[in-house]
Amino acid sequence: MAYQHQSLQIGLFGFGCVGQGLYDILNKNANFPANIVKICVKHPEKQRPIAAEHFTFRANDILDNPAINMVVELIDNADEAFEIVSEALRRGKTVVTANKKMLAEHLQTLLELQHKHQAALLYEASACGSIPIIRTLEEYYDNEHLHSVSGIFNGSTNYILTKITKENLSYEQALKQAQALGFAESNPLLDVGGFDPKFKLCIIALHAFGILIEPEKVFNYGIEQFSLKDLQYAKEKGYQIKLIAHAEKTDEGKITLFLMPQFIDASHPLYHVENETNGVIVEAAFSQKQIFIGKGAGGHPTGSAVLSDISASRYQYRYEYKKRFHQTPPKTTEKVLLEVYIRYENEEDLAKIGLKEITEKYASATYQYVIAWVSLENLRKNKAFLQEKGIFLAYTGKKIVSEKETADVLVEKLVLEEN
Amino acid sequence: MAYQHQSLQIGLFGFGCVGQGLYDILNKNANFPANIVKICVKHPEKQRPIAAEHFTFRANDILDNPAINMVVELIDNADEAFEIVSEALRRGKTVVTANKKMLAEHLQTLLELQHKHQAALLYEASACGSIPIIRTLEEYYDNEHLHSVSGIFNGSTNYILTKITKENLSYEQALKQAQALGFAESNPLLDVGGFDPKFKLCIIALHAFGILIEPEKVFNYGIEQFSLKDLQYAKEKGYQIKLIAHAEKTDEGKITLFLMPQFIDASHPLYHVENETNGVIVEAAFSQKQIFIGKGAGGHPTGSAVLSDISASRYQYRYEYKKRFHQTPPKTTEKVLLEVYIRYENEEDLAKIGLKEITEKYASATYQYVIAWVSLENLRKNKAFLQEKGIFLAYTGKKIVSEKETADVLVEKLVLEEN
Repeated sequence: MAYQHQSLQIGLFGFGCVGQGLYDILNKNANFPANIVKICVKHPEKQRPIAAEHFTFRANDILDNPAINMVVELIDNADEAFEIVSEALRRGKTVVTANKKMLAEHLQTLLELQHKHQAALLYEASACGSIPIIRTLEEYYDNEHLHSVSGIFNGSTNYILTKITKENLSYEQALKQAQALGFAESNPLLDVGGFDPKFKLCIIALHAFGILIEPEKVFNYGIEQFSLKDLQYAKEKGYQIKLIAHAEKTDEGKITLFLMPQFIDASHPLYHVENETNGVIVEAAFSQKQIFIGKGAGGHPTGSAVLSDISASRYQYRYEYKKRFHQTPPKTTEKVLLEVYIRYENEEDLAKIGLKEITEKYASATYQYVIAWVSLENLRKNKAFLQEKGIFLAYTGKKIVSEKETADVLVEKLVLEEN
Repeated sequence: MAYQHQSLQIGLFGFGCVGQGLYDILNKNANFPANIVKICVKHPEKQRPIAAEHFTFRANDILDNPAINMVVELIDNADEAFEIVSEALRRGKTVVTANKKMLAEHLQTLLELQHKHQAALLYEASACGSIPIIRTLEEYYDNEHLHSVSGIFNGSTNYILTKITKENLSYEQALKQAQALGFAESNPLLDVGGFDPKFKLCIIALHAFGILIEPEKVFNYGIEQFSLKDLQYAKEKGYQIKLIAHAEKTDEGKITLFLMPQFIDASHPLYHVENETNGVIVEAAFSQKQIFIGKGAGGHPTGSAVLSDISASRYQYRYEYKKRFHQTPPKTTEKVLLEVYIRYENEEDLAKIGLKEITEKYASATYQYVIAWVSLENLRKNKAFLQEKGIFLAYTGKKIVSEKETADVLVEKLVLEEN
């Protein structure tokens, strides 16, 4: 390509774990033609590892500066981030961000702003840290028929689950360690409640299937209710427990999205993906099953993804959203049945969940569970109830069934599968 | 980017496993603006699944046709492939190829032809089937400091080793199965002798480090000498045996390349990569360890990589060889010591290998091996001797040591490592 290499003058917002990682990377890369002109931070009083002259406390010192042609947004607050990013796009600056919450909540608007102002927005670092999943979906799989994209999209919960299952740490100890290592979001609920990986799932779904979906329309269930009983169950069966996000094509050609804990056995490609490592599985008609594994959290891995976006924008790279604009994107659906392990306390709570078909049932004085087919729509609508009742859910990984199929069809399928 | 979308008129050379896979994919992709104008094949008498009018037997029917703006080269013979590819480039046509032997042997010339005629040559399918490794190295890691790229680059030998170790098949049975499934090269020595993955290693090394190296300068040792004794050794230790290619940066900042069987334990990321699946490990300063796993052989996975190149060239995509031309590529070296398991028959054969330091030694009436540090240069120079004597070699995976370090330093390192 007759690339035109651009000299980048960067205004950086945020100087936390990832921002400092990026600064380190750029500093160690003397040949790289990008210059951090100014860093906008929030707290003037904070001690910082580099000289005060690099910093400003007013966003407009960056946004108003016509010499700055790129904004790199690495702050925590999603609402402030949206203000910065949308204003920078309006001024025609290239924007690189890692803020998945902000992106997932505003994808539609951000698509429009990019189009209207012909400004590029890149965000490889927003999903799965160092794994180049967005660019790969956008460029490499642009003409592939994808069946599903799924995976461990959150380093912090995977770290916690590994420490609980492998080192017998308590949930609280494991969470503290993850926070101390800088893997966790400052609000831990974003991680352990499965919101952070859900945001990533929404972003990935746009590049994999061309669909735009509001995060609140996607069911996410976290690991907060995970107990020693569930751990013991998993160990007896030889399972690992992982928090796995799914965007899957149904038999009807619609996309269903959800995220919850999942039991996986040793044959599953993510079985050995541990600690803060993320793993993405892409299933496609022709390339079949691809697995991408890499560090999902931490300043340097995420910083390297930001750097890669910065580097690409030297060549005027931008997402074309090919699956959305060059093809007809599929519809989404939550009218599907999933087979789920449900640990509960009161029999009557199950009625609310609406079990369609019970596969297994176990009860003792202190521990009871069912494995049953349930409606995804019903789970989402009753999420607050499930949490309130301390119910733990885990997907068994069995193939999803469209809900309109009758119970008869479902039973027939199960029989066929067993043969 | 203000992409200019190009309508592609394709001349296809070869209609074997991958060619037919590609034809299937393009046919099932009605929206894809590429048209296979003509297919050039060698044997007029062969029965083919599509009508005779699609075929020609004269290369010039494609090369001379100005309406054909892209050549997709998927034939077996590397010399003929080079003729076709270089002539197509000279005529300014975009070329997509999967021929790793041809590429590895002519990279220098092919770089010059691309430059001189401003024609693009893409070859994602040449390395590791469906895994998008070349594009990822070229675009995503363009400014990363890579430490190493290594992996299982050959589906056929991995299939054979899996069948031998997991299903107790004999070497001959396993090879036959791989051939029947279409995973093997028509000349099996290319696979089992480790030539095919060595060619891929040379191609990958260009995109990872910017280096050009002739394949015959790279040591490759295949799996032909692998015996039941070695299998039993691996099983007792809990190892898997894999044929792994390495391009590694030494302490001195030079790149060393080699390929031989390797014992890996359960903590190694490729331990569970089985059958025709390939796996690539990229280790980098900032993104740390990334693993890419996917189908490495078969018509559809490889066809999908070819399709992805075809798709990219609609946007005038071409490799910039950034690590070669935008940076100063490192030197290569084979003056390194490797720790290797050596099963041998006659004590005197060891002298020729030149053991620098013996870690372990075992001998019984029917089986003897040493584990020792050996010079890579010496291995390459004595390869014919090693094969003639039926010696089996396997890398232990211990960190490579530069050869100029004295034995004392080496011993000290070993002691340090154990502490």
